[in-house]
Amino acid sequence: MDFSGVFPALTTPFAADGSVSLSDLKHNILLYNKTDLAGYVALGSTGESVLLTQTEMEGVLITVKENAAKEKKLIAGCGAESTAATIERVKRAAEIGYHVALVKTPYYYKPIYKAEAQIAHFRRVADASPIPVMLYSVPIFTGVALDPSDVATLSEHPNIMGIKDSSGNIPALAEMIAITPPGFQILVGSAATVYPSLTIGARGAILALACALPEKCAALYQLYRHGQLELAREMQNVLVRASKTFMSEMGIAGIKFVMDQRGYSGGDPRLPLLPLEEWHKKRIIGVLASVEPAAVGACSS
Amino acid sequence: MDFSGVFPALTTPFAADGSVSLSDLKHNILLYNKTDLAGYVALGSTGESVLLTQTEMEGVLITVKENAAKEKKLIAGCGAESTAATIERVKRAAEIGYHVALVKTPYYYKPIYKAEAQIAHFRRVADASPIPVMLYSVPIFTGVALDPSDVATLSEHPNIMGIKDSSGNIPALAEMIAITPPGFQILVGSAATVYPSLTIGARGAILALACALPEKCAALYQLYRHGQLELAREMQNVLVRASKTFMSEMGIAGIKFVMDQRGYSGGDPRLPLLPLEEWHKKRIIGVLASVEPAAVGACSS
Amino acid sequence: MDFSGVFPALTTPFAADGSVSLSDLKHNILLYNKTDLAGYVALGSTGESVLLTQTEMEGVLITVKENAAKEKKLIAGCGAESTAATIERVKRAAEIGYHVALVKTPYYYKPIYKAEAQIAHFRRVADASPIPVMLYSVPIFTGVALDPSDVATLSEHPNIMGIKDSSGNIPALAEMIAITPPGFQILVGSAATVYPSLTIGARGAILALACALPEKCAALYQLYRHGQLELAREMQNVLVRASKTFMSEMGIAGIKFVMDQRGYSGGDPRLPLLPLEEWHKKRIIGVLASVEPAAVGACSS
Amino acid sequence: MDFSGVFPALTTPFAADGSVSLSDLKHNILLYNKTDLAGYVALGSTGESVLLTQTEMEGVLITVKENAAKEKKLIAGCGAESTAATIERVKRAAEIGYHVALVKTPYYYKPIYKAEAQIAHFRRVADASPIPVMLYSVPIFTGVALDPSDVATLSEHPNIMGIKDSSGNIPALAEMIAITPPGFQILVGSAATVYPSLTIGARGAILALACALPEKCAALYQLYRHGQLELAREMQNVLVRASKTFMSEMGIAGIKFVMDQRGYSGGDPRLPLLPLEEWHKKRIIGVLASVEPAAVGACSS
Repeated sequence: MDFSGVFPALTTPFAADGSVSLSDLKHNILLYNKTDLAGYVALGSTGESVLLTQTEMEGVLITVKENAAKEKKLIAGCGAESTAATIERVKRAAEIGYHVALVKTPYYYKPIYKAEAQIAHFRRVADASPIPVMLYSVPIFTGVALDPSDVATLSEHPNIMGIKDSSGNIPALAEMIAITPPGFQILVGSAATVYPSLTIGARGAILALACALPEKCAALYQLYRHGQLELAREMQNVLVRASKTFMSEMGIAGIKFVMDQRGYSGGDPRLPLLPLEEWHKKRIIGVLASVEPAAVGACSS
Repeated sequence: MDFSGVFPALTTPFAADGSVSLSDLKHNILLYNKTDLAGYVALGSTGESVLLTQTEMEGVLITVKENAAKEKKLIAGCGAESTAATIERVKRAAEIGYHVALVKTPYYYKPIYKAEAQIAHFRRVADASPIPVMLYSVPIFTGVALDPSDVATLSEHPNIMGIKDSSGNIPALAEMIAITPPGFQILVGSAATVYPSLTIGARGAILALACALPEKCAALYQLYRHGQLELAREMQNVLVRASKTFMSEMGIAGIKFVMDQRGYSGGDPRLPLLPLEEWHKKRIIGVLASVEPAAVGACSS
Repeated sequence: MDFSGVFPALTTPFAADGSVSLSDLKHNILLYNKTDLAGYVALGSTGESVLLTQTEMEGVLITVKENAAKEKKLIAGCGAESTAATIERVKRAAEIGYHVALVKTPYYYKPIYKAEAQIAHFRRVADASPIPVMLYSVPIFTGVALDPSDVATLSEHPNIMGIKDSSGNIPALAEMIAITPPGFQILVGSAATVYPSLTIGARGAILALACALPEKCAALYQLYRHGQLELAREMQNVLVRASKTFMSEMGIAGIKFVMDQRGYSGGDPRLPLLPLEEWHKKRIIGVLASVEPAAVGACSS
Repeated sequence: MDFSGVFPALTTPFAADGSVSLSDLKHNILLYNKTDLAGYVALGSTGESVLLTQTEMEGVLITVKENAAKEKKLIAGCGAESTAATIERVKRAAEIGYHVALVKTPYYYKPIYKAEAQIAHFRRVADASPIPVMLYSVPIFTGVALDPSDVATLSEHPNIMGIKDSSGNIPALAEMIAITPPGFQILVGSAATVYPSLTIGARGAILALACALPEKCAALYQLYRHGQLELAREMQNVLVRASKTFMSEMGIAGIKFVMDQRGYSGGDPRLPLLPLEEWHKKRIIGVLASVEPAAVGACSS
């Protein structure tokens, strides 16, 4: 199965009482179904998965699966700190009907986890998983980056199909692409690197920004695919600016606020993530106004 | 309540089938009860708490409480990523009978958690907690270090009684001591800094090494307290070497192996933490032989 | 003047007695003159400039200038720690006939140098310089990275013409390109990022690797310029592997040894940089054999 | 020769025209001669040595030597990036009459300088030096920290007498003390760690702060030596606060401004180091007022 294209790292909407709002999540999915997004990633970092209970995670997985359009590819965030807990999550995701399990590096005991520990962990998970495993390296949150040579080692496992590399480290990405087999699917995780990553052989991207600006993110990929490189570069520039403000500066609360402005259900994040202050919102609205007019139109809802 | 002295950050023993062995945990506690350790820390980082299920954590908390000698002070590791989950754990620890809740900094979204988020989190937890809260800053694992000035701000909360600072950063510790009230209890978390930290005003230490060498760790504190500074310094030198090999190089598996050598129930850690290899064990046995003869005798069991 | 294309960051050859060998430098320049390299950078980091005396630096500047073919653009590394010393070097480079002065960030007092200090330094140097200034950000050596917004501020100075950004940080590069004027010339400094950087708007690159593999480095640029993107990507993959071994693993001594293998004058670096050991050389020869056959032929000498 | 005690890392005063003011330097030395400072360090990091010309450095070395009281021990900062240049400086310092050469780690090519390179550099310098060599590890500026085990290796060289460790890393310092011979003299470089470092076996300290508050810095050492530990701890607390504001926040300009307030010749630093702004000065004066009353009196001039 080919995972080329752009996937949103879905946010998790919360109701006024702080509980997960599955109806708001459904609302978002139904809107995204109308776009060129290649599929969905449930329970990624942007989904505040580390702040959810097991029951809440189950609800999110089922809701996304039930409401996704048939052609959308489904990726479930399954990473847990222990190998056993990760395997449990991977199996449950497979039962619900996900196509791929996204498994992040264990990270708490980072000075103790040498490369052998990471490799052994991923092999055990991949051995036990009913569905293909996508590695997930996200050092900005975990403090752990998978080394290209370790990714190459893991790419030989028949049930490891690719990686989401959110490092933003293009020299390492270039090396990874050069030393893994052509069938190993590499996606990136930061909006600011999508276009240059595509040009060196990445398949696509999993983006927080695609929750708020799905058409533009998907359009960047389509422009690239159809050889409209000048337009692709312009769109990339737009997304760089948007991503800097909405995500790098404001975090998940920023992405959710932009979603609210554009007809999606965003809302506040869960504590200890703080809601935005008024000046944050004003700043976002200003940047959004400068970004909106770019090539692809507003949300079709 | 005064938390001066040395506390072990208890390891969690596992049975051959990988489940938590509460009987082995009880065995260790009964041995530790005969030492000068000031009390126990259950579910700290050394306890592999991030690798345990909620049920397993509950079992550990109860077992430690039920077997601890009366005079031992009890500290429960309660940190979770979400504020709500942390509050639940703190309440449960209070019900079981712990004296203090050790709450680590949230850390997954580290670039998003500014000081305000950390302060708001700790205040909410302290407001809701039936027992006093001890802050926990352990950047080696979390990538997040509480700033001395933020600790000073939090020290004003009536239900925040102190901090376990595992940073090993003595300049920051010195500043923290200088700007917090005298009643704010500061413990350190690395064996290599115990003695110098005591000399500048820390109350004591919570140590992984104290699971394996409880008499020596406790002796260091007693020597300092009784003004035997030269002997204290020598003991500190012994612990520096032991800690370097057993913990910094070998990790939790190293501490557990030393425990096995000395009559405690150590065993292997849980995956993805790897068991030791043979050369690790030989190296540890060699260093242990050079450390054992120091001033205080072997395990009394 | 347009600085598009690939420039070698020239190495400095030393004679057997440890002195700078200007004749060997001349030998290299005469060979490079026959290639598609856009020009030369003298006294960059690869040139071991921080290990040279003032007299030696003068000799290098003059030798490069005198032997460079007419069409080659000349860039002089002029960075010094003090603003006054930097200005002196810039003026001397202009006198000798260099087109552009490459000025790296001051870096020794990195915790004290805030953005204001960097901006003030570059403005003073640019004010005083008879030739245009190219900023130089090389955090791998200096520990200091120029922030895109500060580069944008400096790009407004009429005598600051561009930047050599050796950070390898493509998200930051993308932002920099998006917020600086179109005439601001951005070159990158690591072989592993040349192609993706070109695709998002960089003008070219200044590369250590171009001292050893000038034809291949220059060919990558030409392939990109002529829209042969598939071939460009393949060449990029070759350079990624070469750069990893020759430069990232082996350092300047590695580049110089490859030069020796290919008809240039490489030689050993100056102490405290150590010469290669035999196993290093074997490893390099192995990688070189796999790299040589790529599209563009061997050194024409 | 015993280098116990507190040494100031001398600042370099500049005249109104930006040149080095040797008369102001003499003024400071004559005042320091009346204090309990153990000696002087010329051309350290605080002395802005990386911003001076060779001629200026020579002037500083001679002026300090000529004006120092007989009993003061003299240490010359001799570190340069190249091994050869370092050896030249060491020889010149010996000729002028310095007792010890302080040699910092080479640092520009930090990813290339492995431990072997550092060890080879220091051995070569020590072999060639007419006076004993003191290692200098100052990672805050260089990005390079000498590992305790490498220091232990170097401590076996007969002409390497000790180290100035400015890392502030007390666990590493404790290890270093534990594994080097008793005669190896270890001094620390940050005011915030003086007292705890003394308690674990450091001989003393080389401090920027001692330029501005020489009596207090020297008093801390004397109090410790005479067993007045409670007073020493109080003095340490005072110096922690002073150092935080004057040096960590304000840098060399901060130390120089405090010098101006207390009868010494401070003045502005050299560009690119920026002079203080008015609000900096007000903040320093406020902190100074709270620090002044501590135990030891004001400057005796």
